[in-house]
Amino acid sequence: MIEQKLNITHRTGSYTIFIGENLFGIKEALAQQIAGSHVCVVTNETVKPLYLDACLTALTQFEVEVVVLPDGEQYKNFTYYNQVMNLLCEKHYPRDSTLIALGGGVIGDLTGFAAATYQRGVAYIQVPTTLLSQVDSSIGGKTAINHAVGKNLIGAFYPPQVVLIDVTTLATLSQREYLSGLAELIKAALIADAEFFIWIEQHIDALLKRDVTILKQAIMRACQIKQTIVMRDELETMHNHCRILLNFGHTFGHAIEQVLGYGEWLHGEAVALGMHMATCLSQDLGLLDQTSVQRVYALLERAGYALQLPVGASSANLIQRMRHDKKVYSNCLNLILLQRIGTAVVKSDVPMLALQSVLERYSAH
Amino acid sequence: MIEQKLNITHRTGSYTIFIGENLFGIKEALAQQIAGSHVCVVTNETVKPLYLDACLTALTQFEVEVVVLPDGEQYKNFTYYNQVMNLLCEKHYPRDSTLIALGGGVIGDLTGFAAATYQRGVAYIQVPTTLLSQVDSSIGGKTAINHAVGKNLIGAFYPPQVVLIDVTTLATLSQREYLSGLAELIKAALIADAEFFIWIEQHIDALLKRDVTILKQAIMRACQIKQTIVMRDELETMHNHCRILLNFGHTFGHAIEQVLGYGEWLHGEAVALGMHMATCLSQDLGLLDQTSVQRVYALLERAGYALQLPVGASSANLIQRMRHDKKVYSNCLNLILLQRIGTAVVKSDVPMLALQSVLERYSAH
Repeated sequence: MIEQKLNITHRTGSYTIFIGENLFGIKEALAQQIAGSHVCVVTNETVKPLYLDACLTALTQFEVEVVVLPDGEQYKNFTYYNQVMNLLCEKHYPRDSTLIALGGGVIGDLTGFAAATYQRGVAYIQVPTTLLSQVDSSIGGKTAINHAVGKNLIGAFYPPQVVLIDVTTLATLSQREYLSGLAELIKAALIADAEFFIWIEQHIDALLKRDVTILKQAIMRACQIKQTIVMRDELETMHNHCRILLNFGHTFGHAIEQVLGYGEWLHGEAVALGMHMATCLSQDLGLLDQTSVQRVYALLERAGYALQLPVGASSANLIQRMRHDKKVYSNCLNLILLQRIGTAVVKSDVPMLALQSVLERYSAH
Repeated sequence: MIEQKLNITHRTGSYTIFIGENLFGIKEALAQQIAGSHVCVVTNETVKPLYLDACLTALTQFEVEVVVLPDGEQYKNFTYYNQVMNLLCEKHYPRDSTLIALGGGVIGDLTGFAAATYQRGVAYIQVPTTLLSQVDSSIGGKTAINHAVGKNLIGAFYPPQVVLIDVTTLATLSQREYLSGLAELIKAALIADAEFFIWIEQHIDALLKRDVTILKQAIMRACQIKQTIVMRDELETMHNHCRILLNFGHTFGHAIEQVLGYGEWLHGEAVALGMHMATCLSQDLGLLDQTSVQRVYALLERAGYALQLPVGASSANLIQRMRHDKKVYSNCLNLILLQRIGTAVVKSDVPMLALQSVLERYSAH
């Protein structure tokens, strides 16, 4: 059942995000979006046994190939991108082919990049099956693969044909994966929508129970917020920094992920702690009042995030990592902070000392 | 000296083609087009000793890396694309970097694709040093690399920041390379500009002598023609076939290249013979008068193209190759033909028998 539609406009066109339950069999959602006769479904070993059959049932009138990749960020690279490209080339897929990304952010990014570059661009459909990809990576047209030197270094801005968010797929996520996605949802509220934050506070129990009705509303709201921000800064230009607000909690989060080693903490877990750090720093710098800090802490704690650094990550390690960040100039750091709940700002002159003082409070003793 | 500027608009912006002599040292042409501090020049082993120093002289205020690829279509692949990408990643090139494609179509296509996909798109400048790339591949925003299965299967539509056509670089081209480019120039006239064809007839001696004044005029005209056609059909969509007119002579030409083995005849050499074949076929099908056919023949012969098939390529081989072309339906072929000099049309129902009859006249005996 399609419950909600969100129209996304971008610099070269527009597409629709469908949000609902059991969308695979609905022709309007999937089959009608496919122009030609050739479809290639890209998924991974975890998602395949859960949703591939349902997806294929909706595609009986097409010529379909399936690529199943191993599950994990470490496979978002040239080797597996080439696996998709080789299949398309060898099967002589025509220019009106459609790729379907059935999985989380890794599958979406890699499939989107394959679509962006096969025969100079074919259509692709995002079918995100994780909360993180549903609220975050399906909007903005960013596609990419990783390079040994860094994440997402190779990619393109290339929007999908349609995004199909079936909230029933969230039932099968592990609790950690689910919470990882929920962090981005809370982030959307914190940076841009105070009312939505209140709504999350009120519905946190239902969200933690994965109530589908509440989830549909929350995802819709998060998508709208991201779209509003992305539309103002589609290509993430140097001249217009508003898209950078989406990185709230991420400079801390990335440092935590790196210090612990990628995969140890999930992205959203690190971002949740990072958001709390950024919130405390906002208070230290006189931007944010204490009540707001307490509300953020209460919500993150209620959701179940770890709000202390694990033994493997000292504040000294984090500081060192952030010092090497390209956003450091003359001992000051560029950071996204909160002015109040629902309003983020870019601060370009955060003293390293203030940062140090905050981080020390999170160290395990 | 910048002599002429042509403004190219495309769906997401615009860029300028500068045409002139000794452009490398002119800040307006090269250095002023570079936004950031990092430049990567991609060239090949043939072009490097001829023009790299002149190019680098214009770039002294930038951080510059140079990638030198082997010369040839067979190197337009993932291996050499990765070489460029690895360098950019490992040297931590920022998002405001600029790539410079110094060479022919292969360098332009590969560098453009690297620019399209490094950090989701950085700027690149085309400095085409062959006649073919000056009149043809610098316009239209097509970037690509080859796949073992076929040419240009992996790529993107990604326009350059600026195109710098320095006609003095044509002095160092071999006669075969030069004629290969001249064929595309004649093609532009044949499909879209009868007056330009007359002009070429009048100036063919100066063109063959590579007179720079005449060349600048000819290249400008050819670029304008291509731009007019491309603007109407930028993404080469299924719905709007006008860009396909640029393939005049190419269905025959590709078959000749394939039957002889790639590299045996240059692209433009095969296209020249292909254009003559298409012209004769146009007459056979009652589209074109004999005088026009004779004028085309006279010009191509004056320029020095081989207008007979070599021993290695029989008409039977060509027919067989074209039968397997994806443009064949129920024993009829899709071809670009001439209605008159300066007006090409798409014919979707060319009988294979008519094709056979034309091809047999070109066989070596």
